[in-house]
Amino acid sequence: MNRSDLIYQIKTKKNFLCVGLDPDMTKLPKHLVQEEDPIYEFNRKIIIATAPFCVSFKPNTAFYEAYGLTGIASLEKTIKFIKTNYPNHFVIADAKRGDIGNTSTMYAKAFFNRLNADAITVAPYMGRDSVKPFLQFENKWAIVLGLTSNEGSIDFQQQKINGRELYLNVIETCASWGTENNMMFVVGATKAQMLAEIRKIIPSHFLLVPGIGAQGGSLADVCKYGLNKDVGLLVSSSRAVIYAASGKDFAEKAAQEAKKVAEEMASLL
Amino acid sequence: MNRSDLIYQIKTKKNFLCVGLDPDMTKLPKHLVQEEDPIYEFNRKIIIATAPFCVSFKPNTAFYEAYGLTGIASLEKTIKFIKTNYPNHFVIADAKRGDIGNTSTMYAKAFFNRLNADAITVAPYMGRDSVKPFLQFENKWAIVLGLTSNEGSIDFQQQKINGRELYLNVIETCASWGTENNMMFVVGATKAQMLAEIRKIIPSHFLLVPGIGAQGGSLADVCKYGLNKDVGLLVSSSRAVIYAASGKDFAEKAAQEAKKVAEEMASLL
Repeated sequence: MNRSDLIYQIKTKKNFLCVGLDPDMTKLPKHLVQEEDPIYEFNRKIIIATAPFCVSFKPNTAFYEAYGLTGIASLEKTIKFIKTNYPNHFVIADAKRGDIGNTSTMYAKAFFNRLNADAITVAPYMGRDSVKPFLQFENKWAIVLGLTSNEGSIDFQQQKINGRELYLNVIETCASWGTENNMMFVVGATKAQMLAEIRKIIPSHFLLVPGIGAQGGSLADVCKYGLNKDVGLLVSSSRAVIYAASGKDFAEKAAQEAKKVAEEMASLL
Repeated sequence: MNRSDLIYQIKTKKNFLCVGLDPDMTKLPKHLVQEEDPIYEFNRKIIIATAPFCVSFKPNTAFYEAYGLTGIASLEKTIKFIKTNYPNHFVIADAKRGDIGNTSTMYAKAFFNRLNADAITVAPYMGRDSVKPFLQFENKWAIVLGLTSNEGSIDFQQQKINGRELYLNVIETCASWGTENNMMFVVGATKAQMLAEIRKIIPSHFLLVPGIGAQGGSLADVCKYGLNKDVGLLVSSSRAVIYAASGKDFAEKAAQEAKKVAEEMASLL
């Protein structure tokens, strides 16, 4: 999906919610565990229920790899289900990959060509040749980790290089390798005011903002500091939406939760 | 595998070679392509041929994920083959994973429990809670990216924080989260002299050194600056060994190449 199509979806729906699909077998509704493919069934119902209230889905690959071949098969089926039934939803493979050049190219092919994801999250530590291979695919996106929402972001990301935090250096340097049409950045919502600094460096890029909900960030703050003329935000929520309830009504409750966020988004736009 | 068993293998064999298993379908010997599982067949023959001349195998997950479910199945079979037939060889899943705490735990389970790897390479950018979950498994190892051998290592790793390169900060900080019994570091062989600086910080840890061979580093330099009393090195070679030839004699040629490195290692110890 290209930038103008994504912006069209967001502006038409007045919504920039990305639902994180992180299925954990220990948290799935009990009645699903007897299904042939519980993870896929869970995802399928969550997708159907929440699609009207979001513009994007983001499966985190760890939650599929943890179940081996079965899990990877569930991931493939999940993305295929989205792409077949909701082709206007933006699919992010939250994989945080990054390796030397020829190896990153293998990852890019895996996620863009095989899995048909629109975007993949990329870890920047290895530098230019680990990131650039993800930028060589038409209408596909690299979403580079800038500032993450976890406690460990203080260890390196917030350390200063020449008086400026590493994450600002990472964002500025990585931005020079791509364009606002093939690159986005992950910026944790628990640090909403840091968005103001980031927006000075990359006023036009889209930001993927996790950390709303279970990780505890404020949507109003994110909008205050992060919105640009194209909206320029994808805000993700995983656990708060998909585990809103654990009974037979889990999908309905997930939809209610997504709708609540969607309404707040519409009011903030 | 624990540290003393690894050291025993290395000292007994006078060898610290790790063979990288990075099977690329476009580079496999043509006669293998007709096999039901060409990647596994290739790996199996390479493993049998090179096992006498190495102490470790390192499949890079990108080369398996690129072929989807089939590729992941080949990876599972490959590790099972090693663990069944060569239980004293140390298996490193070169996956460069790292995510927020609960998600890193999922990756750790995937690679340690499901795949039965001894170690996984870990990307440090997200900090403490992204690395620590990999340290909670008995006789399993996190191998954290310190200084990588690719050109992009200049972009962030070699930038200075308070007058000292980021990679030195990363190594020192990460080392404080684990011990020499559950943590190693990736240090690129193209910068052998930087090993001296690194050894001041972590004199006892094992270092995984890629970049010998196709990426062009010198084994003598690596030993000069990197050896410690327990050897403390695993030096990996991938393309130079596994693609030494592309005909029916590929495994034999790979063995010759591995043997050449092994002999150099024995002479340097």
